[in-house]
Amino acid sequence: MAEIGVGMLGYAFMGKAHSHAFRELAYLAWPPPLLPRLVGIAGRNEQAVGEAAKRYRYDYATTDWRDLVADESIGLFDNGGPNSLHAEPTIAAAEAGKHVLCEKPLGRTADESYEVWRRVAATGVKHLCGFNYRFVPAVRLAHELVQEGRVGEIRHFRGRYLQDWGDDPTLDTWRFHPDEAGSGALGDLGTHVIDLARYLIGEIASVSGLVKTFVADRQVDDALETAVEFESGAVGTIEATRLAFGRRNAFQWEINGSEGSLYFDMERMNELQVFGGDDDRTRGFRTVLVTEAKHPFMEFWWPPGHIVGWGDTFMHEAHHLLKAIADDGDVAPHGATFEDGYRASEIAEAIVRSSTSGRREAISFRSL
Amino acid sequence: MAEIGVGMLGYAFMGKAHSHAFRELAYLAWPPPLLPRLVGIAGRNEQAVGEAAKRYRYDYATTDWRDLVADESIGLFDNGGPNSLHAEPTIAAAEAGKHVLCEKPLGRTADESYEVWRRVAATGVKHLCGFNYRFVPAVRLAHELVQEGRVGEIRHFRGRYLQDWGDDPTLDTWRFHPDEAGSGALGDLGTHVIDLARYLIGEIASVSGLVKTFVADRQVDDALETAVEFESGAVGTIEATRLAFGRRNAFQWEINGSEGSLYFDMERMNELQVFGGDDDRTRGFRTVLVTEAKHPFMEFWWPPGHIVGWGDTFMHEAHHLLKAIADDGDVAPHGATFEDGYRASEIAEAIVRSSTSGRREAISFRSL
Amino acid sequence: MAEIGVGMLGYAFMGKAHSHAFRELAYLAWPPPLLPRLVGIAGRNEQAVGEAAKRYRYDYATTDWRDLVADESIGLFDNGGPNSLHAEPTIAAAEAGKHVLCEKPLGRTADESYEVWRRVAATGVKHLCGFNYRFVPAVRLAHELVQEGRVGEIRHFRGRYLQDWGDDPTLDTWRFHPDEAGSGALGDLGTHVIDLARYLIGEIASVSGLVKTFVADRQVDDALETAVEFESGAVGTIEATRLAFGRRNAFQWEINGSEGSLYFDMERMNELQVFGGDDDRTRGFRTVLVTEAKHPFMEFWWPPGHIVGWGDTFMHEAHHLLKAIADDGDVAPHGATFEDGYRASEIAEAIVRSSTSGRREAISFRSL
Amino acid sequence: MAEIGVGMLGYAFMGKAHSHAFRELAYLAWPPPLLPRLVGIAGRNEQAVGEAAKRYRYDYATTDWRDLVADESIGLFDNGGPNSLHAEPTIAAAEAGKHVLCEKPLGRTADESYEVWRRVAATGVKHLCGFNYRFVPAVRLAHELVQEGRVGEIRHFRGRYLQDWGDDPTLDTWRFHPDEAGSGALGDLGTHVIDLARYLIGEIASVSGLVKTFVADRQVDDALETAVEFESGAVGTIEATRLAFGRRNAFQWEINGSEGSLYFDMERMNELQVFGGDDDRTRGFRTVLVTEAKHPFMEFWWPPGHIVGWGDTFMHEAHHLLKAIADDGDVAPHGATFEDGYRASEIAEAIVRSSTSGRREAISFRSL
Repeated sequence: MAEIGVGMLGYAFMGKAHSHAFRELAYLAWPPPLLPRLVGIAGRNEQAVGEAAKRYRYDYATTDWRDLVADESIGLFDNGGPNSLHAEPTIAAAEAGKHVLCEKPLGRTADESYEVWRRVAATGVKHLCGFNYRFVPAVRLAHELVQEGRVGEIRHFRGRYLQDWGDDPTLDTWRFHPDEAGSGALGDLGTHVIDLARYLIGEIASVSGLVKTFVADRQVDDALETAVEFESGAVGTIEATRLAFGRRNAFQWEINGSEGSLYFDMERMNELQVFGGDDDRTRGFRTVLVTEAKHPFMEFWWPPGHIVGWGDTFMHEAHHLLKAIADDGDVAPHGATFEDGYRASEIAEAIVRSSTSGRREAISFRSL
Repeated sequence: MAEIGVGMLGYAFMGKAHSHAFRELAYLAWPPPLLPRLVGIAGRNEQAVGEAAKRYRYDYATTDWRDLVADESIGLFDNGGPNSLHAEPTIAAAEAGKHVLCEKPLGRTADESYEVWRRVAATGVKHLCGFNYRFVPAVRLAHELVQEGRVGEIRHFRGRYLQDWGDDPTLDTWRFHPDEAGSGALGDLGTHVIDLARYLIGEIASVSGLVKTFVADRQVDDALETAVEFESGAVGTIEATRLAFGRRNAFQWEINGSEGSLYFDMERMNELQVFGGDDDRTRGFRTVLVTEAKHPFMEFWWPPGHIVGWGDTFMHEAHHLLKAIADDGDVAPHGATFEDGYRASEIAEAIVRSSTSGRREAISFRSL
Repeated sequence: MAEIGVGMLGYAFMGKAHSHAFRELAYLAWPPPLLPRLVGIAGRNEQAVGEAAKRYRYDYATTDWRDLVADESIGLFDNGGPNSLHAEPTIAAAEAGKHVLCEKPLGRTADESYEVWRRVAATGVKHLCGFNYRFVPAVRLAHELVQEGRVGEIRHFRGRYLQDWGDDPTLDTWRFHPDEAGSGALGDLGTHVIDLARYLIGEIASVSGLVKTFVADRQVDDALETAVEFESGAVGTIEATRLAFGRRNAFQWEINGSEGSLYFDMERMNELQVFGGDDDRTRGFRTVLVTEAKHPFMEFWWPPGHIVGWGDTFMHEAHHLLKAIADDGDVAPHGATFEDGYRASEIAEAIVRSSTSGRREAISFRSL
Repeated sequence: MAEIGVGMLGYAFMGKAHSHAFRELAYLAWPPPLLPRLVGIAGRNEQAVGEAAKRYRYDYATTDWRDLVADESIGLFDNGGPNSLHAEPTIAAAEAGKHVLCEKPLGRTADESYEVWRRVAATGVKHLCGFNYRFVPAVRLAHELVQEGRVGEIRHFRGRYLQDWGDDPTLDTWRFHPDEAGSGALGDLGTHVIDLARYLIGEIASVSGLVKTFVADRQVDDALETAVEFESGAVGTIEATRLAFGRRNAFQWEINGSEGSLYFDMERMNELQVFGGDDDRTRGFRTVLVTEAKHPFMEFWWPPGHIVGWGDTFMHEAHHLLKAIADDGDVAPHGATFEDGYRASEIAEAIVRSSTSGRREAISFRSL
């Protein structure tokens, strides 16, 4: 069985989630497209990264990501570091011929994201931006239903990503430092909403946004509210906040079309609410438990009715990327490419611009 | 027991709902503040209004609302006619010394609404604008919880009123005629969201809106999407649509504050979702069935757990107005006055202006 | 329009609910099959029944129900008194030629219920036993779906009626006195479950029951648990309790058949959960808001999506009975006849017998 | 780090789930109590078990489980085979000094289960019966709340395990062969309900059951319905079925006590509904997302709000057993011992006896 060496940058939240994914896929998705071998893991804290290497069973740990770039046994570079460490290592790895998986947001600014995309695309390696919610079974099913016309012509998309951990002025992580994070709820949560909006509905044409910081002395945004128009003419909202008390990980979205509607809440990520196609007397939103064996992700798992967890989305994502590498296939449309990563940044930046200018901002994208 | 004669303009949807309310309150809310006597009902279609008079047991029917204004036995004029018939009869009735209840939106434009308010306020009669959702038990409870500080400092309000009956280009009612209705989903549904936003959160400072018509040849809006900022600094969204397939009467809103959160859906109008005040291990949104006997509306009804219906909100509203009349008390804050009706129109118009201009529009209100 | 005089026994919970129903139907269900005229109301407390007569606008009050029986202007005798007052007045009214509506349980024992049925049936008047939950729109829809074969061959019925007001040893109403009530949760709540089981599934063949009193010094049962088999071979459970803390009026039932399933909760009485008839990928329970205009009860009400309340079931029930009277039609199958009332008592008694004997008890019914 | 060699019997559903668990725990629960080394896997089909060994990365595969028993490098024998293969290999492994994990039901009959318990207990090894639902985070929280008195004196337990895959007469697996499975829904699903009833409420005193086979020519039961009494005096129901169309994996239970209530549904396994401790106005069931870091299982996982999947319960179970082995601690009370496995069988058999005899059956347990 063909193997691929994996080098990981970051050992904390995303480092753990991604390492788990590579371990998990190798015996659940059998046979795997490529068998991941966990080669090296890099991080700034020597003791912590050493411990992580033992825990996740990487061959070695290093405090210099350049060691991973230089390691010829590594075929896939996975960047789960803070946002300020996305661009340089990812570009370097790609230019060293490694396929790259980079967490979102791709860069701290649209310019930086564009640069990552431009430089990496030029190398010809496979690139995937870690919008892992595309790999929720219910999201994939929603995409299929939309593509098949089951919801008809789409009129509305309402997306909001609500968390509540941000309401403590003493909190201090890189996520609150503009130089490391680029932005707050916008880059962290808002880009997820933007990406699914694009994946499910299509391209965004304009935004009218409000970006807001509530917590005293905080340097990044806590929340954003946006009225949005799509190129297709559909209209809706994009919202994100770290201050929705009681909502722990509530990435909720609804689509209304001329033939049907869909509703999703990440806190019940195994369910998709589906409306349409019923007779008048028994019309209603169906609570679909998305665990049928024929689903492209659920084939890896258990019999119908046995649900998966949040961490498992990364396994689906890793499997998708490894398959594209093994088959020399496309990461798009189901995986977010670095172009998708760049476009999400461009739209996020337009929301900030709109908030400042008070004007609806039309979106225009750079091409290569 | 003191009586009050009621004259009703309109016999269709609102005429039926209001007549039902006056009938119902007189034996449920015992003793009533004033015993309503249903005197006369006016409508354009002679046969239909005659039938309605028999059905709801008014003493007489008329095709000329001026008959009601001239009738000295009528102490309360209730205007449930189309929007184009709100201003003139309501003003005339008030100037004839009758208390007035006028359905929302108060006028077709902010100017018209202002004029109704100005002229009626000058007469000194009691005036209530029919934002009946203030009289949903769960909404009143939400208001109380907010006022008591149970949700803390409010950061977000997300309100949307979703219906789905508008997706048929052959539909033709006065609601689709700009001259009769003034606007579409905006005046019909959007003003409800605006009014509850103001009742629950406080005054709105600015709006960034998109107003949209999807159905071919339709003369009024089908939907609106708005990012909104409140004077307090809270931010959120206001949305309304007649094209959310599968949502029949889904007036949903959520409030997030520093101490708690509230969620409501009109399709489950007897429930309020309440978050806050729990220990970490058992924190979660509580599904509160708002039927306790101590609630200001539920005292009229059944033992706890036995729910009320949509039509019953009008009984609560009518009771509130009759009590203000009987006691010479204030309609505000729990009832919407004509000033509230005017302000909702002003904000609705700013949403339209913003949609056209592409700019965030600050709201300013006229005073008397 | 033909009228019918109504005489009411009882002015408390059921007296209020039934009086409200007769008032309401006359102008919502237009034209009514017969126009109810509220003639007289009887109760033991002179002051209270006098107040009730004013409130519900009966022509007169009396402390002797025999006055109602003797009143020739009364065509319908409605018995909403305590259980110990069901038999004698109801029989007397029927034998005086009046149609009769009697609250459930029909009698305190199966013998008493049988006697009421036998004596009343012999008179030829219309008789309806007040199992009002047959008149919930969602229950009627469920009945239709079952009859049409939409759920296929039924395998399971699970019914439970959960309330939580009984956990106070100092509570004292007639409902806790065996001589007045006959039984506790069994007659009050359990018979509702038994009746809907019979209405929706068919006749019950045997029961294995446990009847339990938890509260010290209480003279009637607090709860019952029953494994049940239907004549069709379907199996399931029947449960009722006044001690399910947090469940206010949770009459919940589920039906599983070879083609579909149905689920209902009285606390969300406007919804029916319907499963069946979907493709594999989008199968799921549909939350059907039972408010479509074509529904036999909803035609009386508001546009789709606008829900009704618990009290409105009595209006549907009263309308059904008045129509049977006006047309000389059958109360069955949608209304519970006194035979249904008797059969519910017979089954309830078998549950008690089973609890005592420790044996599964086969049910056999007496006929006339 | 101390290691323990694992030998696995069975490679299908449970073999996959358990192998996944051992792989997963070693890098999520860091440091693990013991580091599992996957040594050998046994199964009847040579090709399939060989493939499984590669997939889950066992050192070797064998078609004779005696090879595992004889392998001195194996310290833990995990029996995920069909029920007919539970007793002999499990006893042999224990008598060879290996700790044992055996899937439920422990044996096909109470006698067989007793024998497994007796023989294994005599060896002094650690033994755990695979009632994995004790290792659902929400179930563990429920246990804690009950133990702390948060629900008060318990009056009711209603448990039902509903699946819907059994309605096809052509299905043929060992689960439908009495000699291999012992029973149908009873051993497969019913024992899970029995075990959680005992874990959460306490010992069961008597059962009144109905066991039913619906599908033609099926040799095992499809469903059971039971009224149950606990030694504490609490009463309730235990139900299981493979014919609840639309319920995929709906293991639902509710507890009502004098101070609170709890509700759980396995299809939303990350949620616990908790009632109690609120003021009257805002009382209601809280939807608790059981993902707080302080929870004994959730410490292994992601930040709050990020849910786990069904398969992850086995990781929690494996961790619990390894910790008991490493510390020479007790498997009870949070893990089910073989005594618990035996008792579940004894109760299951009493349900069958009751179904045949038509009598309530008191439970008595054998001791060692």
